[in-house]
Amino acid sequence: MFFHAQDLQFEARPDAPDAAFAARLQEVLGGKWGEMTVAMQYLYQGWNCRLPGKYKDLLLATGTEELAHVEMICTMIARLQEGAPLTVQETAQAENPMLAAVYGSANPQHSIVNGGGAYPHDSQGVPWSGAYITASGNLMADFHLNATAEMQGRVQVARLYEMTDDPGVREMIKFLLARDHVHQKQWLAAVEELKADGLDGMPVPEAFPVEQENGAFNKQIINFTDGSSLGEGGWTSELEVDKPVAHGDAPVLPPGDPRLYGTPPPGKS
Amino acid sequence: MFFHAQDLQFEARPDAPDAAFAARLQEVLGGKWGEMTVAMQYLYQGWNCRLPGKYKDLLLATGTEELAHVEMICTMIARLQEGAPLTVQETAQAENPMLAAVYGSANPQHSIVNGGGAYPHDSQGVPWSGAYITASGNLMADFHLNATAEMQGRVQVARLYEMTDDPGVREMIKFLLARDHVHQKQWLAAVEELKADGLDGMPVPEAFPVEQENGAFNKQIINFTDGSSLGEGGWTSELEVDKPVAHGDAPVLPPGDPRLYGTPPPGKS
Amino acid sequence: MFFHAQDLQFEARPDAPDAAFAARLQEVLGGKWGEMTVAMQYLYQGWNCRLPGKYKDLLLATGTEELAHVEMICTMIARLQEGAPLTVQETAQAENPMLAAVYGSANPQHSIVNGGGAYPHDSQGVPWSGAYITASGNLMADFHLNATAEMQGRVQVARLYEMTDDPGVREMIKFLLARDHVHQKQWLAAVEELKADGLDGMPVPEAFPVEQENGAFNKQIINFTDGSSLGEGGWTSELEVDKPVAHGDAPVLPPGDPRLYGTPPPGKS
Amino acid sequence: MFFHAQDLQFEARPDAPDAAFAARLQEVLGGKWGEMTVAMQYLYQGWNCRLPGKYKDLLLATGTEELAHVEMICTMIARLQEGAPLTVQETAQAENPMLAAVYGSANPQHSIVNGGGAYPHDSQGVPWSGAYITASGNLMADFHLNATAEMQGRVQVARLYEMTDDPGVREMIKFLLARDHVHQKQWLAAVEELKADGLDGMPVPEAFPVEQENGAFNKQIINFTDGSSLGEGGWTSELEVDKPVAHGDAPVLPPGDPRLYGTPPPGKS
Amino acid sequence: MFFHAQDLQFEARPDAPDAAFAARLQEVLGGKWGEMTVAMQYLYQGWNCRLPGKYKDLLLATGTEELAHVEMICTMIARLQEGAPLTVQETAQAENPMLAAVYGSANPQHSIVNGGGAYPHDSQGVPWSGAYITASGNLMADFHLNATAEMQGRVQVARLYEMTDDPGVREMIKFLLARDHVHQKQWLAAVEELKADGLDGMPVPEAFPVEQENGAFNKQIINFTDGSSLGEGGWTSELEVDKPVAHGDAPVLPPGDPRLYGTPPPGKS
Amino acid sequence: MFFHAQDLQFEARPDAPDAAFAARLQEVLGGKWGEMTVAMQYLYQGWNCRLPGKYKDLLLATGTEELAHVEMICTMIARLQEGAPLTVQETAQAENPMLAAVYGSANPQHSIVNGGGAYPHDSQGVPWSGAYITASGNLMADFHLNATAEMQGRVQVARLYEMTDDPGVREMIKFLLARDHVHQKQWLAAVEELKADGLDGMPVPEAFPVEQENGAFNKQIINFTDGSSLGEGGWTSELEVDKPVAHGDAPVLPPGDPRLYGTPPPGKS
Repeated sequence: MFFHAQDLQFEARPDAPDAAFAARLQEVLGGKWGEMTVAMQYLYQGWNCRLPGKYKDLLLATGTEELAHVEMICTMIARLQEGAPLTVQETAQAENPMLAAVYGSANPQHSIVNGGGAYPHDSQGVPWSGAYITASGNLMADFHLNATAEMQGRVQVARLYEMTDDPGVREMIKFLLARDHVHQKQWLAAVEELKADGLDGMPVPEAFPVEQENGAFNKQIINFTDGSSLGEGGWTSELEVDKPVAHGDAPVLPPGDPRLYGTPPPGKS
Repeated sequence: MFFHAQDLQFEARPDAPDAAFAARLQEVLGGKWGEMTVAMQYLYQGWNCRLPGKYKDLLLATGTEELAHVEMICTMIARLQEGAPLTVQETAQAENPMLAAVYGSANPQHSIVNGGGAYPHDSQGVPWSGAYITASGNLMADFHLNATAEMQGRVQVARLYEMTDDPGVREMIKFLLARDHVHQKQWLAAVEELKADGLDGMPVPEAFPVEQENGAFNKQIINFTDGSSLGEGGWTSELEVDKPVAHGDAPVLPPGDPRLYGTPPPGKS
Repeated sequence: MFFHAQDLQFEARPDAPDAAFAARLQEVLGGKWGEMTVAMQYLYQGWNCRLPGKYKDLLLATGTEELAHVEMICTMIARLQEGAPLTVQETAQAENPMLAAVYGSANPQHSIVNGGGAYPHDSQGVPWSGAYITASGNLMADFHLNATAEMQGRVQVARLYEMTDDPGVREMIKFLLARDHVHQKQWLAAVEELKADGLDGMPVPEAFPVEQENGAFNKQIINFTDGSSLGEGGWTSELEVDKPVAHGDAPVLPPGDPRLYGTPPPGKS
Repeated sequence: MFFHAQDLQFEARPDAPDAAFAARLQEVLGGKWGEMTVAMQYLYQGWNCRLPGKYKDLLLATGTEELAHVEMICTMIARLQEGAPLTVQETAQAENPMLAAVYGSANPQHSIVNGGGAYPHDSQGVPWSGAYITASGNLMADFHLNATAEMQGRVQVARLYEMTDDPGVREMIKFLLARDHVHQKQWLAAVEELKADGLDGMPVPEAFPVEQENGAFNKQIINFTDGSSLGEGGWTSELEVDKPVAHGDAPVLPPGDPRLYGTPPPGKS
Repeated sequence: MFFHAQDLQFEARPDAPDAAFAARLQEVLGGKWGEMTVAMQYLYQGWNCRLPGKYKDLLLATGTEELAHVEMICTMIARLQEGAPLTVQETAQAENPMLAAVYGSANPQHSIVNGGGAYPHDSQGVPWSGAYITASGNLMADFHLNATAEMQGRVQVARLYEMTDDPGVREMIKFLLARDHVHQKQWLAAVEELKADGLDGMPVPEAFPVEQENGAFNKQIINFTDGSSLGEGGWTSELEVDKPVAHGDAPVLPPGDPRLYGTPPPGKS
Repeated sequence: MFFHAQDLQFEARPDAPDAAFAARLQEVLGGKWGEMTVAMQYLYQGWNCRLPGKYKDLLLATGTEELAHVEMICTMIARLQEGAPLTVQETAQAENPMLAAVYGSANPQHSIVNGGGAYPHDSQGVPWSGAYITASGNLMADFHLNATAEMQGRVQVARLYEMTDDPGVREMIKFLLARDHVHQKQWLAAVEELKADGLDGMPVPEAFPVEQENGAFNKQIINFTDGSSLGEGGWTSELEVDKPVAHGDAPVLPPGDPRLYGTPPPGKS
């Protein structure tokens, strides 16, 4: 159950409108690695978590925080759209040469569909997808994914920082960068905690007995490219580099069911 | 540039057909964490990689191997469909009580669309999406994602192992489990290698100056749920647990452009 | 900003597992008219709302409640999956004839992907889409949509009520039916409130001057089918029924730019 | 069965080309609330309608008209693309400063994929989806949705009217605004007609017995946000405003099937 | 502009309900190669066609016919759902052993979402997509695609014929097979007509001067697999079989913009 | 099984960066008719092919070549992005008037998401979909589709040739045009080969007995539009032109299951 407070977790106020940047900012709202993704991913993992206690709390606490980030970015996007040029004509009449660039790179759905607001789509207008999130029931795999999500997210937010010099926008981004920093640390710490608690380990899932793997194939990197540097990596301390070899025959499929009207096998035509 | 050899990397031959399992096996072919994803993700990361040498080689070598796994699973799926029941009537006539379950859980597109073959869709028939892969240009974030992909993949393959007792299918799965094991190790080793080479570090991207983050927010986990166990985790050695506080005002958006025909602000009606 | 309490808004506990029903229940979680949709739709409308006060409060209060429904349904789906048959073989060995139906109609991603949990996809496994929600900035259009969403939702939940006789499941559904009832009333009341406040009216958007419409076409239903009953509806008190007439010439498009390599116009070949 | 006449229902001829507006106009062709949606939604509702007579006729008549609107907008989009700039170089050479904005905001698929024509995608190039339409079999819920669709559609078309000053384009838009006006009235009248005919009522579906709802929860709006204005709305005449209370325990999920390799419950590791 | 007649082009009446077949029949309604696709593809090609006369007429005539097929299949699907089992319990109670198979393979959205009707989704519930159709503005490419669509469609319909023995369903399928037969012939004839009229030819688009192709690469099939049979095909009369050779250097990408926080190039760390 | 060589099949090096063209070039990488599609389509058809020998070899050889084209276009797109303008401010400061157009038409995900690289999405940012490919098991239908894919692809590449005057980009395009030329010929030759080998014929699938079609409907084009030119086509030598006639009654659907809460049939309310 959730409760909402109308104050924002952090201020989301640009110094000046910039509809082109509003379009770009959609990426970290409704893109694959945006705030919608982390909010929903952590909450679903929390709801599906079969272990009561610290791990479940961490998931639900962080997922709930991410909802506040969704809200902040929505607010920022709405404010950035103020006074956005609606027609190519007003773009041309203005003396400001930047306006053509703004008009060209603004998101037309921001005005036609949303009336000046934000929506859960990415910077190219592709809708957010439930397929962006994973809650596998295996916390080790999921915490690694969560750390990854914070890394990809922080990379994108850092890039957006460089794409604007608006002080208000940058203030909000600096806050997001800090939170992504914490969340990277936290999920990596949670990975270590799972190991310390003996709940899982490498390779994930550790509970699947390694003896049941095919032991002939779990120690080597196989070099399927002609680059020559594979042996120079530190990974050779644990793994060897092998040449590719085929271990299965060229497949010959059985003739298909004639009721499927595939091309008949040789001699059947 | 690629060359194809018709022999398989490993044998893909079931002992008996099982159209229901063929439907489930699609998950690790065309699902979010399936072989299409890892093949394409590693190749795109390799093609976009701006560092010649060991990292690029590792990406291209592994991505190319994954194409061989796509091929193996396709072959297995086609063979598993042999003799699949096409009508509910033949299901009823058979003495075998399992046939109703097989008919009900087989993928109808396997016969109607593919004529007894595989396709790049998941176990529910949702098509594989280019959005499943990421090649961010930041190797640290991407290698973490690659390790994650191998974990999620190995979890799914281990589950599929438990969902069949066909010896031939299990042989192939044992091979895949072994390769996923190696690839987990390899990407985690590559993460360490990047650190050792001084190319990136935590938080990702390390090149973004931590001083430019908002320093008041990069040391605490904020407890947005009412669970009481957050302080019991090992993460408290590095991070503190804080209560949620609002740092921004409740947003009041500016009145919209009247040409957008939104609901007018108070006093404007 | 949001706060989470781990207690549920209402109990979500089935009397017995039923993996087939778990698959169906996904429709009102991650389907087009499910709880994900109403939660996100109301919140985005609230965040984008340019009128502080009662309307904004209503949107944010209700959207936040819907998050609690998402949580309840996730919990129910996870519990319904307990002991789900994983293999067609155990289905056959069981004496229970229902098991074949359960195996055939369960969602294989529930086990392969989610490890026994819920996810934001519909009853056929199609991921929830950000395109399911609309926040147009015009509250009249949006409140009508919200009332519609509660109607479609209540229809679906009523159907699901008839598809199970599990007492625990029905208890939760009875709660959802009651809340959908309230929300239908509330959004229809909000429509009237907007009119009473003089903020919008019919046709939506009322602010667009009806005089600028083409007045020759805004009074008639045009009968493009050969059914003969159109004149029997009460709508004829306000609108007339007309025959279809063409008011534009058959279009002849200009020849295309030759650099686009379309089929050339006559005489240009 | 359908018959096609090549004359248009209304003229679709711009006074001048404008490839940027052509891109925007796609929204009301292939967007969520565009003409493809209303055409297909009304036709599918008509085909699925189990009541012969006036309601079915209304659905089929209106759906068939909307196909004519699809055709008109396609024609307009094709004509608007005449002479679209294909290269950034010709954009630069022209003296016209508007050309950069046009080049930047034109839809590249209009030329690369369609060769100067229209397609069923929205203003950001996202393909139209069958998920945009609903034909629930419950006419009350569907007529409400249809009224909503005409509202959202008229809001979008009104916005597009403000985004161009081309007289020919505006003539077509004035026609569409008039038809959307009629269709709003018509579907709202059909809602009343259903009530007058005793076929359904509030809450939808009225046939589900209200006594089977949980009566403790169908009279109150629950205030899950901290806004203070909820009690000021007219909705309080029918509904009361309540505080949120939890009625279910914090869920503890059962341990998962070990064959799913989730994280084991406490004490099982 | 379109007109609708409520009589069907051909009868669509099963002898008995079969909800499992109803689910499968969705493939040729809302699947990639179903009736929605051919209807919309031919109509969009017709609307975008810049040549008035016989080609445009052929596109519009055939597209309009396909709408009648959409209507027929919708009708059939609704009728096939009569009496579909809604619960796993009624499945178990019935003496009919087929019912478990029917329950397991029916489409749950048919009842939960559509209330016993059809919708524009495929046999796995994936929504029809505007991306399924192409109207390229090049009639030669598009007529080839249209012939292909009729081939894929006829293959699927033939398969469905084998998946039922219901006389009424088979009657409708026999009609569809006949129409697909005609349409295959017609589009192939239209391809020849374009050549005879000198409007296009091979390779498509013929208007692009072959001299501007790279002449060193337009005469050979390059053998990128190790199969040995490539030389046995009739294609060798026109084309030669060559070995793969690289003609470009291994790419070394320029260092990225540091503001994008990619992994820095060697020596830049 | 595949092997990768790092040298490119053909050079992919622009003379100058052009981020706007990089965005457009995505169409033939990740669009519906791009290189991802032909690579995957031919490979899946090859893997599913039940005929060993020349046809299977042709599919696998060509599919593997197309992977090399994917790689080339990725490389070109990465190089075209060099020095792309990241902010609207640097666009404004530059003296170059083209920069506004470039900024407006560049793909923001190229920088925010990919860090200067390519990805499997189209020119509007829509992700590549597994639904773009078909491997039906019927080689005649599939070879026709393959020829079509090369036609649509060559049309798009020819258009892109006209949208740039960069010599390096045009060199790569000239290579692609040549290969598309060969592949068109090859698939059309393969169609003839199938006929010569007696494996299939017209109408596809020829194995379905024409006698089982409805013979009253397989000889005529039915004129569902009011255009008058249908009789002028060469198709009349084989087919006749008929008027549309209804052969089925206006459908009256049975009353629905009351548990589905649809609108009740007349007299049932």
